Amino acid sequence: MHMSRKTVIIGGVAGGATTAARLRRRVEDMEIVLIEKGDNISYANCGLPYYIGGIINDRNELLLQTPEAMRTKFNIDIRVANEVTAIDTRGKRITVTDKKAGTEYTETYDNLVIATGSVPFKPPIPGIDGENLFTVWTIADTDLIKSFVGQRQPKSAAVIGGGFIGLEMAENLRAAGLKVSLIERENQVMPPFDYEMAELLHENMRANQVDLILGDTVNAFHSQNGRTTIHLDSGRSLTADMVILSLGVRPNSRIARDAGIALNKAGGIIVDEFLKTSAEDVYAVGDVIEVTEYITGKTAMIPLAGPANKQARICADNIAGDKTAYHGAMGTSVAKIFDLTAASTGLNEKSLISAGLVKGIDYETVLVNQKSHAGYYPGSVPITLKLIFNKNGGILGAQISGQDGVDKRIDTIASVIHMKGTIYDLEELELAYAPPFSSAKDPVNMLGFVAENVINHLVSFICVHELDQLSRINPDKPDGESYTVLDVREIPERLESAIPGSIHIPLGELRLRLDELVRDELIIVYCAIGVRAYNAARILMQCGFKHVKVLSGGITFYNSMHHRKL
Amino acid sequence: MHMSRKTVIIGGVAGGATTAARLRRRVEDMEIVLIEKGDNISYANCGLPYYIGGIINDRNELLLQTPEAMRTKFNIDIRVANEVTAIDTRGKRITVTDKKAGTEYTETYDNLVIATGSVPFKPPIPGIDGENLFTVWTIADTDLIKSFVGQRQPKSAAVIGGGFIGLEMAENLRAAGLKVSLIERENQVMPPFDYEMAELLHENMRANQVDLILGDTVNAFHSQNGRTTIHLDSGRSLTADMVILSLGVRPNSRIARDAGIALNKAGGIIVDEFLKTSAEDVYAVGDVIEVTEYITGKTAMIPLAGPANKQARICADNIAGDKTAYHGAMGTSVAKIFDLTAASTGLNEKSLISAGLVKGIDYETVLVNQKSHAGYYPGSVPITLKLIFNKNGGILGAQISGQDGVDKRIDTIASVIHMKGTIYDLEELELAYAPPFSSAKDPVNMLGFVAENVINHLVSFICVHELDQLSRINPDKPDGESYTVLDVREIPERLESAIPGSIHIPLGELRLRLDELVRDELIIVYCAIGVRAYNAARILMQCGFKHVKVLSGGITFYNSMHHRKL
Repeated sequence: MHMSRKTVIIGGVAGGATTAARLRRRVEDMEIVLIEKGDNISYANCGLPYYIGGIINDRNELLLQTPEAMRTKFNIDIRVANEVTAIDTRGKRITVTDKKAGTEYTETYDNLVIATGSVPFKPPIPGIDGENLFTVWTIADTDLIKSFVGQRQPKSAAVIGGGFIGLEMAENLRAAGLKVSLIERENQVMPPFDYEMAELLHENMRANQVDLILGDTVNAFHSQNGRTTIHLDSGRSLTADMVILSLGVRPNSRIARDAGIALNKAGGIIVDEFLKTSAEDVYAVGDVIEVTEYITGKTAMIPLAGPANKQARICADNIAGDKTAYHGAMGTSVAKIFDLTAASTGLNEKSLISAGLVKGIDYETVLVNQKSHAGYYPGSVPITLKLIFNKNGGILGAQISGQDGVDKRIDTIASVIHMKGTIYDLEELELAYAPPFSSAKDPVNMLGFVAENVINHLVSFICVHELDQLSRINPDKPDGESYTVLDVREIPERLESAIPGSIHIPLGELRLRLDELVRDELIIVYCAIGVRAYNAARILMQCGFKHVKVLSGGITFYNSMHHRKL
Repeated sequence: MHMSRKTVIIGGVAGGATTAARLRRRVEDMEIVLIEKGDNISYANCGLPYYIGGIINDRNELLLQTPEAMRTKFNIDIRVANEVTAIDTRGKRITVTDKKAGTEYTETYDNLVIATGSVPFKPPIPGIDGENLFTVWTIADTDLIKSFVGQRQPKSAAVIGGGFIGLEMAENLRAAGLKVSLIERENQVMPPFDYEMAELLHENMRANQVDLILGDTVNAFHSQNGRTTIHLDSGRSLTADMVILSLGVRPNSRIARDAGIALNKAGGIIVDEFLKTSAEDVYAVGDVIEVTEYITGKTAMIPLAGPANKQARICADNIAGDKTAYHGAMGTSVAKIFDLTAASTGLNEKSLISAGLVKGIDYETVLVNQKSHAGYYPGSVPITLKLIFNKNGGILGAQISGQDGVDKRIDTIASVIHMKGTIYDLEELELAYAPPFSSAKDPVNMLGFVAENVINHLVSFICVHELDQLSRINPDKPDGESYTVLDVREIPERLESAIPGSIHIPLGELRLRLDELVRDELIIVYCAIGVRAYNAARILMQCGFKHVKVLSGGITFYNSMHHRKL
């Protein structure tokens, strides 16, 4: 096999640096050139919010690999502060600006890897380039923020955008003692979550004194005397000492586009399964590429560090002569947001409902509340899990929120999705159990059990918002569908809080008091989280009641959704 | 379909209680009788050591379900303190002793479920029935221990047996302030672990002041004046105020055997995939049954709570008229042992080596040290992972030890094994990453990467004990195979500790100093954990060195194995 002798890699962070290191391990005598426009390579961009918040104290901790160390250990020609301005795919050469010397030169390649990543999205809002408005994407961005905070001692910050970085910045700015507002155009933060799951985050963020402004859009920033007034579409305005812009990212694909390399509509570089672009001997990896969404097989932009690193390894192997395919990404992600961990994988319900992204998938969802580990062992906390699956049991996605044990469960589900497993597999998974770690039936097993019950019509759920809709339609149930909300908890629990209009029969008395219920009416059963309600529903369904539904997540979730504190 | 009308369940803990509850949810009008010889049902037997240790304070926390509550909520005829003494499988009836009334009666069944669990093994060692020798298996056992500790205020304890319960008891007795010795017949604790992984536990237990006596057997207990002297085969003896016997468990299958129900050699009840015994309409679940070991397809006894609960659900469904198969167990387990979590799944290397348990499986192992989460985020700790796989990449088993993030990784691997995945799947798994939770390449991904490198001959490992063997054969390397141990770390690291006889070339200088090494000699490369050594090995292998091996786990693991403290 003919081995190409010189590989040039554009971009030295996750995708680029990993490609270079793997390639060197595969081919000792290949010339490898890594060109990075910034001053650093292979830095911990996911750690930047924590450095700003002071959780990570030492800036050097963020620099995983210095250019010098990588040069000597990997024998790679590393050129920081060098920016590639053009690619000549026919001539197989690139034009580079040496930013320090101020000179321009060309460099040939046998193979080229574009790992230019993504850039923060900055929409053309008036005033968005003000001096106290920041993005959080590079070490340079972070240095600017740190320096600003040090010099100006801001007392308040507004975060624009409720994605991962916005949420992590809100937490870290609070940790640094600032008053924080977060403004998000949608009615929820954390885009991979569905609304009801995001509500758990909203509740917790508000409890942590974040001024959460949802469903409102910035139409102008106005900076004056070191402060910025943010004008919103609603007419509302607020003022902050600094502004963090976290409005998502866009693929950094300009030089690829200029070189005639095929891009998708979002500007992502189109690659084949071997990570080759439309140009000969040009590969691309990381945030800049379009990937195959693993579950639907459709294309998507999934700018995450995990997929970037895996792509890099595969890209290096292919340049070394292998023929290894990248099978796509499903967007498994996790974020720490104050007391909560929020994690998700695969598709969410929003995307299934929204205009034709996934047509023809008839899906079901279940939402369960479980303990992070055995309830009788100290430190157990509730976690809320939502599973989305189709009628054949195929798993489409999951969302989990809670204070502990959330990352573990999303990883387990992501592994089963990767293996094309079903809810029946979730039931059978043999997960590690001891009281400090889990329960004999792990919450992931429980998701499988409940999903199977739904598929087999042993139980049917109603969501909180569906119940709310019913009670809006039938405020006194005079005209519309007649229904009863049945509380099967014990008296002390009911005294703490109850769903308005519900009647009360404790589970233990239900068999003796069936005559108090109307057999043809819709009966919505609830308890604290849903376990007793499920048992009650089984009794009713087997005793001739035709329309029985269990309230998903019980009154615990109902109270979260109605911002009711106990 | 004809529905059987009366199901009797023998045993009311995990397997029995779960079967009863699920069966009631499936069939409201079936008569269900649950007979339990003890006073409690559905208690948290996995929590007992923590109650003894005072981690769990309230005894009621252990009682997950009272007979009264289960009776009213599930309409189940629950008879505690009733012991089944005989089964007449032809007449379909059982003989029961009401232990409180002192009377005997018979009870008929349409379906019978044997969920009698297991009992602690008590070998016929002289003195084993002494009054201050205890097993830890039931609430009654625990009450005895608690009462003994309260009255006698023991200052020291000896734990016999280094399995899960022995280890958890050692920790909990230390937590309660006792001086603790642990005696284990084998040369290691934690049977699912291989020796080198168990060494990490030994090191930590000794650091927590457990007097660990390995490779020695008790031949007599001699109790006098409230203290017990334990005589060991080695001639050594020790004295303790109390003794905990944790020598494993045996299936509690006497009534099944007496009824002519087929058992295996270990006394486990043989069931088919639908959990039916050899007797008509008699099912069995939990510790008392033999199961199919999931990976090999061979039969095994796997007395764990997780499998018992899953079997119970399936058993109930089958009695309700389904035809659901149980697909076996692979022994996924986890234990908290002082600072460490020790978890495993599937087969270990010992069992692969030992007499023909698994013949013809040509396996490989890798051992890696990884961080629990991003090293730059506070709280990151090292975890050690061992993976056992075959030449096709099929995963045979895994063992993990560390202070954090261990349970998560074993669950991920167990999920992939369940799905019959390979090491190539471990590479591709898209696991949730943010700095507080993991790294962009999760330790499980890393296991896959390293395993693939081994299969593709990109790297070859040597274990610490193999290196030790080499140095024993060739103390001065005069006659035997000539080899060099090469340290590729930096000078400050080498000054802290180094492998005796190793030579030193930092990774960054290796390419320039290749002439200092002999090309035909075996070269064993090491660094702190193995990452730089792998890079060095790749350089050497590609520069004409024929025999290059990386020391598994680096000097970190070497020092653990040699009990070297730094």
